[in-house]
Amino acid sequence: MISRSLSRFVVDSQWRDMPEALRHEAKRSVVNVIGTALGGSSDAATRRTAGTLAPFSAPAEATIIGRREQLNCLDAAFVNALAGNVFDFDDTHPGTIIHPSAPVAPPLFAFAQRRPMSGADLLHAFILGVEIECRLGNAVSPFHYKKGWHITATCGVFGAAAAIGKVLGLDETRMLWALGNASAQSCGLVETLGTMAKSVGVGQSARGGLLAALLAQNGVEGPERPLEGPRGFLQVMGSDPDLAGLTEGLGERWELLRNTYKPYPCGVVLNPVIDAVLSLREQSHVPPERIAGIRVLGHPLLGERADRPAVTTGREAQVSAQHAVAVAWIDGRAGVTQFSDERVKAQDVLALRGKVSVHQEAGHSVDGARVEITLVDGTVLDHVVKAARGSTDNPLSDAEISEKFRTLAGYGCPGFDPEPLLDALWRLDEAPDAGRVIALSAFG
Amino acid sequence: MISRSLSRFVVDSQWRDMPEALRHEAKRSVVNVIGTALGGSSDAATRRTAGTLAPFSAPAEATIIGRREQLNCLDAAFVNALAGNVFDFDDTHPGTIIHPSAPVAPPLFAFAQRRPMSGADLLHAFILGVEIECRLGNAVSPFHYKKGWHITATCGVFGAAAAIGKVLGLDETRMLWALGNASAQSCGLVETLGTMAKSVGVGQSARGGLLAALLAQNGVEGPERPLEGPRGFLQVMGSDPDLAGLTEGLGERWELLRNTYKPYPCGVVLNPVIDAVLSLREQSHVPPERIAGIRVLGHPLLGERADRPAVTTGREAQVSAQHAVAVAWIDGRAGVTQFSDERVKAQDVLALRGKVSVHQEAGHSVDGARVEITLVDGTVLDHVVKAARGSTDNPLSDAEISEKFRTLAGYGCPGFDPEPLLDALWRLDEAPDAGRVIALSAFG
Repeated sequence: MISRSLSRFVVDSQWRDMPEALRHEAKRSVVNVIGTALGGSSDAATRRTAGTLAPFSAPAEATIIGRREQLNCLDAAFVNALAGNVFDFDDTHPGTIIHPSAPVAPPLFAFAQRRPMSGADLLHAFILGVEIECRLGNAVSPFHYKKGWHITATCGVFGAAAAIGKVLGLDETRMLWALGNASAQSCGLVETLGTMAKSVGVGQSARGGLLAALLAQNGVEGPERPLEGPRGFLQVMGSDPDLAGLTEGLGERWELLRNTYKPYPCGVVLNPVIDAVLSLREQSHVPPERIAGIRVLGHPLLGERADRPAVTTGREAQVSAQHAVAVAWIDGRAGVTQFSDERVKAQDVLALRGKVSVHQEAGHSVDGARVEITLVDGTVLDHVVKAARGSTDNPLSDAEISEKFRTLAGYGCPGFDPEPLLDALWRLDEAPDAGRVIALSAFG
Repeated sequence: MISRSLSRFVVDSQWRDMPEALRHEAKRSVVNVIGTALGGSSDAATRRTAGTLAPFSAPAEATIIGRREQLNCLDAAFVNALAGNVFDFDDTHPGTIIHPSAPVAPPLFAFAQRRPMSGADLLHAFILGVEIECRLGNAVSPFHYKKGWHITATCGVFGAAAAIGKVLGLDETRMLWALGNASAQSCGLVETLGTMAKSVGVGQSARGGLLAALLAQNGVEGPERPLEGPRGFLQVMGSDPDLAGLTEGLGERWELLRNTYKPYPCGVVLNPVIDAVLSLREQSHVPPERIAGIRVLGHPLLGERADRPAVTTGREAQVSAQHAVAVAWIDGRAGVTQFSDERVKAQDVLALRGKVSVHQEAGHSVDGARVEITLVDGTVLDHVVKAARGSTDNPLSDAEISEKFRTLAGYGCPGFDPEPLLDALWRLDEAPDAGRVIALSAFG
């Protein structure tokens, strides 16, 4: 019944019933993920994957965000989802740690270049895809990720299938088959995190979901209960899954309204730490050689995830409090450049990194932290952050998301003018042809 | 160490070290799976999937077995693996119930049409791919399948990646990346069995493995321990996996030598039952209306898997002892036709099916069974089978595999002359160009 109920919900949903706040959040999510895809467009993982797929991909119908080449919509979904998530700088669904947009938005945009659809239709399908993806994530959390499943990929394939099924106008049974064909492809292991193989799972979730829906449209049938059946997704990849929550309040509360956007390209636990460092720096910028030591104090998860004094690559540095503090103090910012392999190896960063230590302190949520800088002369600078930028209680403004977009475009595609694309994305709900909007992301 | 050791094993292996019996078994496996792919080439799942992929597939470089269209090697691997396994009439690795050849041989043949390789190179890579696939299956069995993983798909992707990595000549590190990129794509749920969605998982395992190796060749890096790492395949998808067995006796004992080939297109537990029915029928063929009842007696698994009196589709009938007995008695054979939707609904089969009952009896292995037919006049006919045709102790002969190939070709591709292809496959180890061999399977 769960698989059918979710299928019926997606099929029956109407754009006119989407609240204005939800429509707006969908646009914020889309702007954010297209921005991170621009930023990731020239990364080695993106280039090598696009290069591997290109000889097999026709017709050249869909834009690779921030790049010159075009691939077919399946492969473009793969590469753009990969690029959107490659730095883990995309959005975060609290509770599940799913990055919701990367597996769902790219297949929709790629498919829009094959089969024209309005921006409103795309946003509506996006909202529904994220709803299915994140409800499945809720049902299997926290077991699923802890066990070793890369939840963005494993749940993302269902979101992509539901979203594409919606724009295809599948009926209830074919929507169910789309979820079944997605269940046969649900994959992604946490062991691959920190390597390019992570992105293979994320790319495949987007491509696999799109394919799942196309197969269903063409009559490739799935089981009656791909999700809740005894050998289906929830039982096999969950442990005592929360089945009731899957269909509770469908159409009344929306998972996308809980979405958050990262201000910094690193683990979310580091957000309040970087906020505190940048605030202290603004108050009084002291050269690193005058600093005796920096203590970072916070929630136990901060230490568990990010107490990492020795790092050698940008990817590792994304989960190093020591690196984040040092580079933010020296550079006065914490953008993609600050987490590059080069910056990780820089002598000045290395020197300051050695002075940073991480400690637990009672009274902090995961969104809060305290940073205490002791100078050589004995002075102590101290700053507490309660709710980090980008957290549920302190969300990025639209303007900040736009600024993040521009910065990422500049990083991934130097010379690209991001304004026409950015403007079109903020007005996506009015666009008659979503495919023409994403075509503006071509570059090179 | 396990992932590296297996990678090194594949990289270092030499064709000259492959024993003659192993080379011959590889050819038997290949003949068998190309035969089942011919048989499955016109099935709806095959047609609909090929039709879905065709608009996105270029160049037209690789044969779809038993069909006219050509797709790129990635998509051909998908469709041919699907077709080879769609009836579950392909090979079976005892202990794991993996169908070893479908995920591994099709990507090799498809890739051979893109990048020429000798038949010996293909067979060598096939042997190694099956070795990785089945050793992984051993390590996670029996938990893995029981939990709900479709083991052919989940392990097949590694076999395909290793095999393609071998023909690409990857070095040890890139072979390791290939396994890592495969780990990010390992998927397939038992809930999908009995539906076309099962085949989506199997097709994806072949395609995903081929892609994993191509990505590795192009520098898409994976983790150091994709298999044995704490969040890797063995720990996440296994339970207390047998790690020692993974590398024990590598290059000395070969999993492929344990491979078995089905004489009938149905669950393996039914093999001895059908053998017994056909033997009794040969002794004295009694018209169904003179039969009062048929008792099938065997191992507990027979009842668990195949005591299914009411069936409505061919796919269900593949695991129904009642159907198998009835149709074998009436038709005098048990081929693909006997497990078609039409035959399942036929009145004569239905009538006799109602007289068949399944019972447990001590002393039978899963390869054995007894069938007892009581006639209306009170006469009792009785036959015991110890080792069914196709079991480890009673393997199909080369001639029987050839005959199965011809029958399947006739079923899936009426009018196709199977002899040139069959002859070329039996001499595959001498072929300078394996791609030209598989090209002989085009039809229509």
